[in-house]
Order: sequence, then structure tokens, then C-alpha cells
Amino acid sequence: MNNEMVIRITRYYRILNRLRSLGLEKVFAHNLADAAGVSAAIVRKDFSLLSIYGQKRGGYEIPELMTKLGSILGKTDKLEHVIIVGCGRIGRALMHYTGFEQDGIKVVAGFDSDPSIYNDPNHPVPVYPTSRIEDVVKESDTKVAIVTVPETATADTFQRLLSAGIQGVLNFSPITLKPIKKADGTQVIVHNVNIALELEQIFYELQSPNILQQ
Amino acid sequence: MNNEMVIRITRYYRILNRLRSLGLEKVFAHNLADAAGVSAAIVRKDFSLLSIYGQKRGGYEIPELMTKLGSILGKTDKLEHVIIVGCGRIGRALMHYTGFEQDGIKVVAGFDSDPSIYNDPNHPVPVYPTSRIEDVVKESDTKVAIVTVPETATADTFQRLLSAGIQGVLNFSPITLKPIKKADGTQVIVHNVNIALELEQIFYELQSPNILQQ
Repeated sequence: MNNEMVIRITRYYRILNRLRSLGLEKVFAHNLADAAGVSAAIVRKDFSLLSIYGQKRGGYEIPELMTKLGSILGKTDKLEHVIIVGCGRIGRALMHYTGFEQDGIKVVAGFDSDPSIYNDPNHPVPVYPTSRIEDVVKESDTKVAIVTVPETATADTFQRLLSAGIQGVLNFSPITLKPIKKADGTQVIVHNVNIALELEQIFYELQSPNILQQ
Repeated sequence: MNNEMVIRITRYYRILNRLRSLGLEKVFAHNLADAAGVSAAIVRKDFSLLSIYGQKRGGYEIPELMTKLGSILGKTDKLEHVIIVGCGRIGRALMHYTGFEQDGIKVVAGFDSDPSIYNDPNHPVPVYPTSRIEDVVKESDTKVAIVTVPETATADTFQRLLSAGIQGVLNFSPITLKPIKKADGTQVIVHNVNIALELEQIFYELQSPNILQQ
């Protein structure tokens, strides 16, 4: 199973979760395809690689399909914990984002270097000084951190997260972080989301549509 | 030039911009490589494909390099305009983001269906009702929109943006939008940034590191 396929399976699972919460019981490959932005042939091929087969006229049973895809994705009923480091506007927006829970993700705490925001009752989760990252990560069994600190604090924050035992980072800072292998052999996974870069690529594609056709 | 290479060139350009603002005049391929998260060999290969050559011991002149990469990327001194549709927490955070301008991007306006926020003096740019999208897009010559509306409003928002003449969309809603070809033959570019999905992929990679090795 390659990375692209994992992304598609994760998408299917999320779409099924939404369809189920709307009360649907069955789904066709072409519905999933439409919602996931791929062709129905790809959905069928993915499922057939995973030995998942629907009924000819009825499509797939949503609960059964979710169980199968969920076990492939290692889904459990337990919520996955994340922390948010950097409680500026973006960090706070993510703290309040209500869509995580339906995808099995729970923000356990925020961290910031500015003491004035620790006791703000508007935060939906506690906000602690960055010196407490290690304690909280251990107590809450958290493996993944979202980094929303300013550029200048990114490198230090990354080091601190590694020492605290964090194994995966979703980085929103404009500084690109690299996946690294720690001294103990653990691979730390990093995904960088650079919003300005995404916009620049769109502008680039708009002005030179043919170059990308290759 | 393929998509991956465009992404790298855009990264190099942004890094150079930052180095220049720190007062640096020259840069080595390995510095750029470190900052961009690639190997120095890749930087040299990219530059050689673009017929850009450094001096053996001195590296590359930053202003010269920026001019060359900038012309490849179609950079002008003019700021590229974007609008933000959906002024919830994420939309407002992006409205206040100060990093866009140094990448040549300017947020010209926000749009929301909630009239109570139109006259909030804290917004750094004007916020209008969504019915005004078409006017503002035309007046301000805006081609790209950031979509930060709730799931249920995503499809309608996309249609409205297409009718208004928007050609590129950066979509933060959990609903995946698909690039489409309009009736007049224009290709509309869509980039989807799904934060929960990014996190889920990290969790997936953490639990099954070997599957992704291939």
C-alpha cells in the first residue's frame, strides 16, 4: 500500500463516517469517488486490492466497510492525542476546531511562552508554559504535536518536542522541518503545511498552466 | 519543469528572500539545501537545469539568483491579491497573518454570511457579505480565494467563486474540492489543505512505519 493509497483510504473512511452520521447505510463506489475527488474505478481498484467486495446492485454496507477500512488504518475507539505549541491566532483557531473529534483526534493542551494567556477562560483546553511540554506529553500519552509558533521559535520548539518524546509533527510555521531519525533509531514524522507556499504555487500554476502538463 | 521542481524553486526563492532581508549577499547550495529540506546535489541539479551557475568558492550571488528564479516563477513587484471566504477563527487568523506580504501576497477582503462581523474594527481588511464577492473580485483584480467556510457551505461557496471569475482556490474546508474546467475552457486550480487528514496520516505513519517504506 503506497502513500497515495493510504491518503485515499483515510479519505474514504472520513467520508463514510460522515455518511453514517447522516443515517445512510449503504454507499456506491461512485458516491465515495465523487466525495473523495477520484474516479469510481480507483475506489473499486483500492477495495479489490484490500479484498473488499460490494454487492452488485446494492453497493457497500457502510458499517462493514468502516470496520474493514478502520482496521487497515489501525483505528481504535480511543481518541488520538495531540498538543498545540504556539497559541497565536492559528494555534487558538485549531484549539477551537470542532471537526477533530469526529475524526478521532483530541487536542489535550496548548503551550505558549506568553504567561498572559495561560489563564484565559476562553480556551477550550488548558494552555501551559512550554517548559511543561515534556510532563504533559508523558502524562497524556501524546505522540503528535501541531506547531504554530513564529518562524524564529520553530527550530527550538522542534528540539524541545523531540526531547519530550514527540514522534510526529504537523508544522504550520514557514520554516520547513525535516523528518529525522533519533539516536535511539526512532523515525520522527514531519508534515509541513506552508500556507503562503500553497498560495504561491497556485499563482504559479495560473500563470503557466502548460508547464505543469508535462 | 515538473511540479516537484516548481515547489522547490518556490522554496528557494522564499529562503533567499529571508536571507537577503537578514543582510546576506551570497549563499551556497548546501545552505539552500538545508533550509529547503533537500540535498545540495538536488539544488545544484535544479540550478543547472535552469542554466544558473555559481562561483566555485563564492557560491551564488543572492540578488542575481533571486532575479533569475523570480523571472522563472513569474514574480513581479506587484502584490498578488487573494480574498478569504469564511471569517471564522481560521479565516480571521489568516486575515491577520503578517507573513503573506513578504511572499508578495495581499489579502484584499474577507467575506462572511454573518452581518454581525462586517463592521468589527479589529479586522485588518474589510469584511463584506458573500453577495459582494463578484464585485470585489472584479474591482480588485483578484484571481485566488482562500476558502475557510464550514463543511455545509463549501459547495455553494465554490460555485459562487467560479461565477465570480476566481481561477484558483486554496480550500481549508474538510470537503475535498476538485479542479474543474469551466465552460469557457479555463482550468480552475484547487489545492485542498485538510488539517485533520494531515494529522490522521501522521498517526497512520506512526503505527505502520514499514508499509510506507517501499
